[in-house]
Amino acid sequence: MIGIRRMSLDLAEGIAVLHRTPSVLRALLGGLPDPWIRCDEGADTWSPFDVLGHLIDGEETDWMVRARLILDRGPDQPFAPFDRYRHLRENRDRTPGELLERFAELRAGNVAELEALELGPDQLRRTGTHPALGIVTLEQLLATWVVHDLGHLAQIARVMAKRYRDDVGPWAEYLPVLHR
Amino acid sequence: MIGIRRMSLDLAEGIAVLHRTPSVLRALLGGLPDPWIRCDEGADTWSPFDVLGHLIDGEETDWMVRARLILDRGPDQPFAPFDRYRHLRENRDRTPGELLERFAELRAGNVAELEALELGPDQLRRTGTHPALGIVTLEQLLATWVVHDLGHLAQIARVMAKRYRDDVGPWAEYLPVLHR
Repeated sequence: MIGIRRMSLDLAEGIAVLHRTPSVLRALLGGLPDPWIRCDEGADTWSPFDVLGHLIDGEETDWMVRARLILDRGPDQPFAPFDRYRHLRENRDRTPGELLERFAELRAGNVAELEALELGPDQLRRTGTHPALGIVTLEQLLATWVVHDLGHLAQIARVMAKRYRDDVGPWAEYLPVLHR
Repeated sequence: MIGIRRMSLDLAEGIAVLHRTPSVLRALLGGLPDPWIRCDEGADTWSPFDVLGHLIDGEETDWMVRARLILDRGPDQPFAPFDRYRHLRENRDRTPGELLERFAELRAGNVAELEALELGPDQLRRTGTHPALGIVTLEQLLATWVVHDLGHLAQIARVMAKRYRDDVGPWAEYLPVLHR
């Protein structure tokens, strides 16, 4: 299907993914033994727990905050820079279950707000100013939100897979996820 | 946590992942608009639909079939080669919902069978003969089963993410999943 360029983002299709992410993460991580939740790829890399915290930061400080800024202020007021390390400070004393619940609650509210906006093509073309990337559109922001979810889901799966890197023996060569 | 070598696989931890995969895939793909299920990364690459079919093939012809062969016959009887294209023939007329249900049913049966074996360290060290890789242990087979699930989950997320590759605009450089 790649190569067939759509005229513009089908917002309902994007929302279908955004809506599902909390239940995907709950199905994957809910009640899972802690070594899976806390494993990482080495120094200064993120565990599934850290990724959950980062996704919460996105809900609290990024996606809909920026969408509202585009709609209310346009490109004159640049977005606040996103703090990629906020979650490392905020979540020290939280449990994985608390993060899963918090993310689900925030995401449900943000998706409901997005749907209530009933955005049309004219609004999706509205622009804002990213502090590093410059002019971006609301459509690009919303597409990025979806891709960001899927990228971090892929990351969680990859980090977990590598926990068994030494256990698979000669099968390692058939498992590309271990070499990314 | 990587770098701390476990003495041997914690089977209950591995099973916790195997057990969850059907519900993860149902949460991610169940009822999702068809373009997400059918998108791929170009010619001769797999869509999420194809990956589901491949996972079903694993349940029907690979994992527990090979585990039983190791326990019953040892290394003298090599595994039958795994057919990576079987699903492309088998599933032409099936719906995504049918594949999700079929996978869940097969996986539940296989996990129940695995748990009923109550494998101990001696059995996990038993060997079989892979047609290409040579001597492998039951422990390596079971670790590979888990990594295989997680690798294909990462693949599904990546394939879906790339559907919006052209929609994210300048954010593409911040989204490594689009460049794998």
